[in-house]
Amino acid sequence: MVEAMKKLISLDRERNLLSHIGALLGWDQETYLPEAALDERSEQLALMEGLAHEKAVNPEIGELLAKLEGEKGLSEQERAYLRVCRREYDRETKLPAVLVSEMARQTSLSQAAWVQARKNNDFKGFAPHLATMIRLNLEKASALNPDAPPYDVLLDLYEIGSSEKTTAEVFAVMKRDLVEILGSIRSSPQTDDRFLRRRVSAAAQSRMSDYLMAAMGFDKRRGRLDTTAHPFTTTLGRDDIRITTRYIEEYFPSSVFSTIHEAGHALYEMGLDVGPDFSGTRLADGASMAIHESQSRMWENIIGRSLPFWDAHYGKIVPMAEGALDGVGLEDFYRGVNRVEASLIRTEADEVSYGLHVILRFELESALIKGSLAVEDLPEAWNAAIRETLGIEVPDDSRGCLQDIHWSMGSFGYFPSYALGNLYAAQFWAAMQDQIPSLERSIAAGDCSPALSWLRDKVHREAAALLPSELVLKATGSALDPSHFTRYLRKKYSAIYGF
Amino acid sequence: MVEAMKKLISLDRERNLLSHIGALLGWDQETYLPEAALDERSEQLALMEGLAHEKAVNPEIGELLAKLEGEKGLSEQERAYLRVCRREYDRETKLPAVLVSEMARQTSLSQAAWVQARKNNDFKGFAPHLATMIRLNLEKASALNPDAPPYDVLLDLYEIGSSEKTTAEVFAVMKRDLVEILGSIRSSPQTDDRFLRRRVSAAAQSRMSDYLMAAMGFDKRRGRLDTTAHPFTTTLGRDDIRITTRYIEEYFPSSVFSTIHEAGHALYEMGLDVGPDFSGTRLADGASMAIHESQSRMWENIIGRSLPFWDAHYGKIVPMAEGALDGVGLEDFYRGVNRVEASLIRTEADEVSYGLHVILRFELESALIKGSLAVEDLPEAWNAAIRETLGIEVPDDSRGCLQDIHWSMGSFGYFPSYALGNLYAAQFWAAMQDQIPSLERSIAAGDCSPALSWLRDKVHREAAALLPSELVLKATGSALDPSHFTRYLRKKYSAIYGF
Repeated sequence: MVEAMKKLISLDRERNLLSHIGALLGWDQETYLPEAALDERSEQLALMEGLAHEKAVNPEIGELLAKLEGEKGLSEQERAYLRVCRREYDRETKLPAVLVSEMARQTSLSQAAWVQARKNNDFKGFAPHLATMIRLNLEKASALNPDAPPYDVLLDLYEIGSSEKTTAEVFAVMKRDLVEILGSIRSSPQTDDRFLRRRVSAAAQSRMSDYLMAAMGFDKRRGRLDTTAHPFTTTLGRDDIRITTRYIEEYFPSSVFSTIHEAGHALYEMGLDVGPDFSGTRLADGASMAIHESQSRMWENIIGRSLPFWDAHYGKIVPMAEGALDGVGLEDFYRGVNRVEASLIRTEADEVSYGLHVILRFELESALIKGSLAVEDLPEAWNAAIRETLGIEVPDDSRGCLQDIHWSMGSFGYFPSYALGNLYAAQFWAAMQDQIPSLERSIAAGDCSPALSWLRDKVHREAAALLPSELVLKATGSALDPSHFTRYLRKKYSAIYGF
Repeated sequence: MVEAMKKLISLDRERNLLSHIGALLGWDQETYLPEAALDERSEQLALMEGLAHEKAVNPEIGELLAKLEGEKGLSEQERAYLRVCRREYDRETKLPAVLVSEMARQTSLSQAAWVQARKNNDFKGFAPHLATMIRLNLEKASALNPDAPPYDVLLDLYEIGSSEKTTAEVFAVMKRDLVEILGSIRSSPQTDDRFLRRRVSAAAQSRMSDYLMAAMGFDKRRGRLDTTAHPFTTTLGRDDIRITTRYIEEYFPSSVFSTIHEAGHALYEMGLDVGPDFSGTRLADGASMAIHESQSRMWENIIGRSLPFWDAHYGKIVPMAEGALDGVGLEDFYRGVNRVEASLIRTEADEVSYGLHVILRFELESALIKGSLAVEDLPEAWNAAIRETLGIEVPDDSRGCLQDIHWSMGSFGYFPSYALGNLYAAQFWAAMQDQIPSLERSIAAGDCSPALSWLRDKVHREAAALLPSELVLKATGSALDPSHFTRYLRKKYSAIYGF
């Protein structure tokens, strides 16, 4: 390896160490921080972010990149690494410091206003902040790439290589299919899931989580599970991937599927094995938000809500459930955890209607960014879209356009990743089924390792070396195709609902 | 406040933030770190230590100090702050980088060798490392102050302003008295403490710890309790003081008194209130290791092993003890937890013999540093000293001169703090009793707040502004006097043992 590459890697590793330390500060804040310590923790986080940013925008990186990009005879991995470094370096250096600090300041105000507005069902109180966040996102998009449409620039931050056009095409097919499947389900008899509301103690749920993580292949020597108000996954080191869950004693499936979801994210992070030369660098990162989400949803829904999976594990979970599942058969449980019902809140939505929640947000945020939808008209547009796609009425903005934190944080362009994740997952699953005929038999026998090995080989090990579009093509042999997801849903739900 | 002072404080606060972040890395390593993550955690810690060191030796601090030390019209607090900064700045800048990194390297080797040597009872395997640690400590002492005897320089690192002479004078009195008291106890009938070995679950011990911390006035909004292999206290922020304990199910007093001990340290840290101008600076630090230890031992032994304390709390602890204390009266419990018996291991020693363990180490380490004791003669010298002061035989070096980690880490001069802590505590306690006639009645009524308020006013709030000798004089009206401790012991143990 040439000296300049070694130097670049060593600068990158220092930045990465700082960013992992920042992740520990964040993790601790959500898990164990004493309440009075929050103020100083914010100062600590700001300091670490500043130090990591300094490392990331070090002009020496720019010089090394320029030098190495002209170098002949680099390996494919080295060239992939340079592409990732170039992309991140340009992103971090193109934003003017004054814009970055203005965004930090306004985001903090906006988030506080959003918390109040949601609590008091007061969209008007939040509207000026939303307008500010839109304005700052336009400035950000323009700083990053003044020649592209702003929403394309924002989408590219999360799903690299995507645009409004490519996303809209995929979502149009997806929306049509989801609406149709939802219609079929609504005209069929509903499944019963009342038994899922029987009380299960937090201690018992914690044992279930441990069991399920082990069943998935989560390596506890390289990670851990804790509890927080909102479940998440965070990477504190190459061998330190932590997930969280929450225990609602009156609804234990919440922790069961949150744990599986977050463990799915964690398995991806644990599998980003780019070899010793590039470990701890930007190459050892996920390919995109949506690819990350494909891993969590693969485990949560496609595997974790499947009949083969519960065939293997239901008999172990029942005795942990403190009587709550006594007399509930495997099939009943399976149908219960797959109940589909149009509802108001995205984060509580089932596998079918979830995508519709996301597509609605994509349509609205792209209109907000383009200026074709005015901030003050958002509630009405939201409510109309919910009525049109889900057939239900929004009773108040708190359960409508104020429900998500994302826009208050200035995250525009992020939402599509959630739905794209489902599409990638279904396409990976179809390829996996083709290539491993015994896949579902193994899962039914309690062995998830063939699935995990396939994901490790085809997805995880590629890490950040490929664009999402390249990754899906290499792993499955074809470009992203939303029909895999709808085929999967039709097959599963026609069996459950009998249509 | 003059500009230079503001600048100095702001540099100091950044250093402090980094050091708190390093403390989080260390705390997490002992509590929750997944085992495979240890390697990267070491890199993270080294990076943060490097950054904190850079901030601490910033030449700008030297310039600001030189400027401010010539300034007229500073407040008393400002002058105290400058003294503390000067002391720390000189310490951090006087050590040559090559010595610092050599010490880090050798310490790591020495500690690993010590672990093996203790396990295999192999003093010879550790001896060369011990010799190296002594040599490096001599170099360190010479770098810090070439004109003073090396052991004086080392002592001063932990107990500022102390010397071998002052320490030896105090310890001579202490040793004579402790040997005499121990003799009286040994010729009296022994107390029974077998009931303390009855099984109490970790969960029950955890409830006891919570109860006792609350009884002491530990503010859970500003701290927390976790479990680790070895109990400790660490400061992660002005309002984030964390303690740890360990639950031995076959010996619950271990957690009870560890928790009280560490909570005593934590109350000191929580009370270092130097006002808004100097919060987060070096002024908001403990006065010395021994003063710190005086706080933990005040709570653990003088208050926490007293009859009034258990008069208030025993009735609450019994029902938590899962039957282990059924039929055990308050007096029996009190006598049990105050059983005195000469034993081999310092960390398990009672309140009377503990000081003898420490004095022995002081005598031996000062001889090692002076060269009047050769490394190879240490085991024999150790065993003779144990025989002389405690009247017992050392069966092997693992339970003899290899038992402590300190010398393997190169900490020479640290041990005396442990015994000085007992002396300071007893002197503070005597003054507190004089000044608050109702002190023990309050404690017996379950109210520790008069004791805590006195400590806050007289000790905690002084923080690092005074030398230990100045602090004890100001708080108690007289210089350190070891007779307070032996008077306290005689009164307590003559009642328990009837001599």
